[in-house]
Amino acid sequence: MQSLSKNKIKWIRSLQQKKFREEYGLFIVEGEKMVQEAIDFFGHSIEFLCVTKSSKINVPTSSFEIALATEEELKSISSLKNPNNSLVVLKIPAKKTIDTNFRIALDGIQDPGNMGTILRLADWFNVKEIICSKETVDIYNPKVVQASMGAIFRINVVYCDLVEYLSKTKEPIYGALLEGENIYKKTIAPHGILVLGNEGNGISQKVIDHIKEPITIPRFGQAESLNVSVATGILLSEFFRGK
Amino acid sequence: MQSLSKNKIKWIRSLQQKKFREEYGLFIVEGEKMVQEAIDFFGHSIEFLCVTKSSKINVPTSSFEIALATEEELKSISSLKNPNNSLVVLKIPAKKTIDTNFRIALDGIQDPGNMGTILRLADWFNVKEIICSKETVDIYNPKVVQASMGAIFRINVVYCDLVEYLSKTKEPIYGALLEGENIYKKTIAPHGILVLGNEGNGISQKVIDHIKEPITIPRFGQAESLNVSVATGILLSEFFRGK
Repeated sequence: MQSLSKNKIKWIRSLQQKKFREEYGLFIVEGEKMVQEAIDFFGHSIEFLCVTKSSKINVPTSSFEIALATEEELKSISSLKNPNNSLVVLKIPAKKTIDTNFRIALDGIQDPGNMGTILRLADWFNVKEIICSKETVDIYNPKVVQASMGAIFRINVVYCDLVEYLSKTKEPIYGALLEGENIYKKTIAPHGILVLGNEGNGISQKVIDHIKEPITIPRFGQAESLNVSVATGILLSEFFRGK
Repeated sequence: MQSLSKNKIKWIRSLQQKKFREEYGLFIVEGEKMVQEAIDFFGHSIEFLCVTKSSKINVPTSSFEIALATEEELKSISSLKNPNNSLVVLKIPAKKTIDTNFRIALDGIQDPGNMGTILRLADWFNVKEIICSKETVDIYNPKVVQASMGAIFRINVVYCDLVEYLSKTKEPIYGALLEGENIYKKTIAPHGILVLGNEGNGISQKVIDHIKEPITIPRFGQAESLNVSVATGILLSEFFRGK
């Protein structure tokens, strides 16, 4: 196995920036479990694998380049505080839209941890597609990838002009708003689009104009708001609990 | 207004460590909104206030010490990436237990963001007390305080030997486990104790032994697990939705 060249270090580091991820069409996945998942299910999309001596990654074929790094080298290319023992560079999948009767739409989510948690929630409740406004954090941001716990491999994410998208759909459009119908009293079927807004500002007015079904999680105490990924979880649970 | 002395800088920085928070009985709150809330409702507990020129904090009485800091100085004492314009040092409230018929119990939650989000959830659903095992992250950790969005002022948090606590209570004990009763099919009243476990390892075996009512959020897709704060949100929603 070859060692990690200086050029490769520079190349991998560049992929921490959206600009270079888009230019090269590549993103990074770290950590033994997710790297193994990438190799097992997306072997054909792998561009490069980097491991340390302690890695127990199982590589069935050697159809991609593999380098051995020291722990210091891995630390220097990792976006994690405590890098594990493996890192893989993967091709960003081609854009597609899929046929499904329930979608989440995100209007300007900024926090990578929230985005990763929402991907994981979608994966739990079997929501196959997430539509994002262009201002929403990039799903190939390393912190999103890690927080998704592998969900990134299974959920189709589309970035588009969200206002245009919503104006064209015939599906029911639900929106999580502070002044909406009580979700516990409303009959909701797992069918349509559920819109969630930015952490600080909520859903933008242009998007609100397209929401036909404003819904609210009733508040029993004093907190001013809920974290957006927690609200997504509670709403998905309400959508699917009757299934 | 006096400027910020070197001794004060050292003293405030020391409060980022649990050891010194416990020694002095003090903790830090940052950001204009939470600082204002602290002053308005806990003025008597305030030890020290630090503001920059841009702060619009309203201080009704000057019964505590106030210092004016430069933005650089505030940055040097802040635990936030982008410090706002104010920071306050508050007395840790005296320990107490309160009378309530529903509690959350946390067995070894480690992530400050999760802990803060769970406090905020408790505040939303009007859960007045959280019982924590001694291994659970300190609620006065600056990241917990900030993620709680003010909930820390309203929720009573008790650290104790959780196994002993559960062995003595006569309340029903619910636990979020992967193999439990389907929460959507179970009749659950907002009465008792809901136990949540550590991010990686779940609830410890000694605590599981005291759980009378194992409950589970059904999985519709492929994700292996849910984030613990999201799971807390979904479960609290199920407990309180019928109220």
